[in-house]
Amino acid sequence: MDLLDLPPVGATTWVVADGYIPPGSTGPVPEMLSHDSVCILNAGGRAAKVDISVFFTDRDPAGPYTLEIAAHRAHHQRLNDLQGPEPVPVGVDYCLLLRSDVPIVVQHTRLDSRQAANALMSTIAYPAA
Amino acid sequence: MDLLDLPPVGATTWVVADGYIPPGSTGPVPEMLSHDSVCILNAGGRAAKVDISVFFTDRDPAGPYTLEIAAHRAHHQRLNDLQGPEPVPVGVDYCLLLRSDVPIVVQHTRLDSRQAANALMSTIAYPAA
Amino acid sequence: MDLLDLPPVGATTWVVADGYIPPGSTGPVPEMLSHDSVCILNAGGRAAKVDISVFFTDRDPAGPYTLEIAAHRAHHQRLNDLQGPEPVPVGVDYCLLLRSDVPIVVQHTRLDSRQAANALMSTIAYPAA
Amino acid sequence: MDLLDLPPVGATTWVVADGYIPPGSTGPVPEMLSHDSVCILNAGGRAAKVDISVFFTDRDPAGPYTLEIAAHRAHHQRLNDLQGPEPVPVGVDYCLLLRSDVPIVVQHTRLDSRQAANALMSTIAYPAA
Repeated sequence: MDLLDLPPVGATTWVVADGYIPPGSTGPVPEMLSHDSVCILNAGGRAAKVDISVFFTDRDPAGPYTLEIAAHRAHHQRLNDLQGPEPVPVGVDYCLLLRSDVPIVVQHTRLDSRQAANALMSTIAYPAA
Repeated sequence: MDLLDLPPVGATTWVVADGYIPPGSTGPVPEMLSHDSVCILNAGGRAAKVDISVFFTDRDPAGPYTLEIAAHRAHHQRLNDLQGPEPVPVGVDYCLLLRSDVPIVVQHTRLDSRQAANALMSTIAYPAA
Repeated sequence: MDLLDLPPVGATTWVVADGYIPPGSTGPVPEMLSHDSVCILNAGGRAAKVDISVFFTDRDPAGPYTLEIAAHRAHHQRLNDLQGPEPVPVGVDYCLLLRSDVPIVVQHTRLDSRQAANALMSTIAYPAA
Repeated sequence: MDLLDLPPVGATTWVVADGYIPPGSTGPVPEMLSHDSVCILNAGGRAAKVDISVFFTDRDPAGPYTLEIAAHRAHHQRLNDLQGPEPVPVGVDYCLLLRSDVPIVVQHTRLDSRQAANALMSTIAYPAA
């Protein structure tokens, strides 16, 4: 079996509905820095161009933020680290819409270390198309 | 790419089966107040009317509770904050059925701060139709 | 809208693959007793008969454990509390297969309070049929 | 009902996008050792051969790691414990692709005990085929 000859796996449109970067952290950084992340697999043989749009409660959406993910690669992206076209605001509710030009798989994970010890949550995102 | 010209994304009927508002909290409020929430994306160009019904173990369902979510907007709703037609009871098991007149995406998240530090759980809800 | 006149919602076969009752607890019982649970919505107008089978690593499956869930009702079941045909063992890996005679929705949640503070995890189960 | 005469349940290709073994632990081992795991149900009557491939950010994928799961059995596998063809690195982002020759169900769970108390996250993996 050739791991570099796999068909593409997943969907091209994904949604995360509970987006939030916790404002504050307890413990060593960067490991225990509170963060919200999208973890992406591009299993296939072509690079993926992924556009992320950020939706808010009371303003028009921001983005797209564009990621390039090489063929046969994992990419775990902290929303905290996206800078352009504008930083994702901390302590603000948002939703994410991800669109890729090749099939990918997306999982959403948050680490919240605002209180002593850390809390984790994770879910496969919603595959929309 | 025009973020305001996206097709609707998601489903119109969603279920959360593990509903529960933890009775008690540790830490500063409102951030660390124990809560149960539904986080909703309305990516499309029409406002969404979302009816939430609450099912219980030993009585007929309550609701519907109605949310209006504008086009291209996120809406994170704490069940704790729904008041009409009646408050959602605290410390009681329930399930949620959400029905929207346009496609939406729903994610269920609970923050439980009854003990020291907070615990988090989250899952994309079940898209039923 | 009549909440008691909704069509059935969900699937009739569901799987939980990560079953485990943590052996030990910290904090007040029964709220903070470590537990593994399946939370079920029967939104439709007919009572549900749900058979739960428990699969293990090194022995034949146990069950079925049978639940009756009335029409239009929620039912949150701690695996710890199932007694017949035999108690579900504590501190042992298992998987769950749930089969219902009417459509239901199943969510899997664990509360683990073995260490100070509690940890939570939850996911919509896998709808197999 | 004969629990040993059930049809196979699930899918043959599954993805976990947020793979990570936390580097460090607090509390007694092996229970509270930080770990990342895939929990698998093989409900049907034939043994399953499951190939796990591990994708990374900046190198070609590793594997396949092969599991044999007997008919009618649960199997919870800590990624920490996979040794061949090479150990899964600790503290490194990865994604998992699982392929089975019979239908299975996969759930992804992480226990992170780097800080005081433990944090848990879990999700049904993404069924790709």
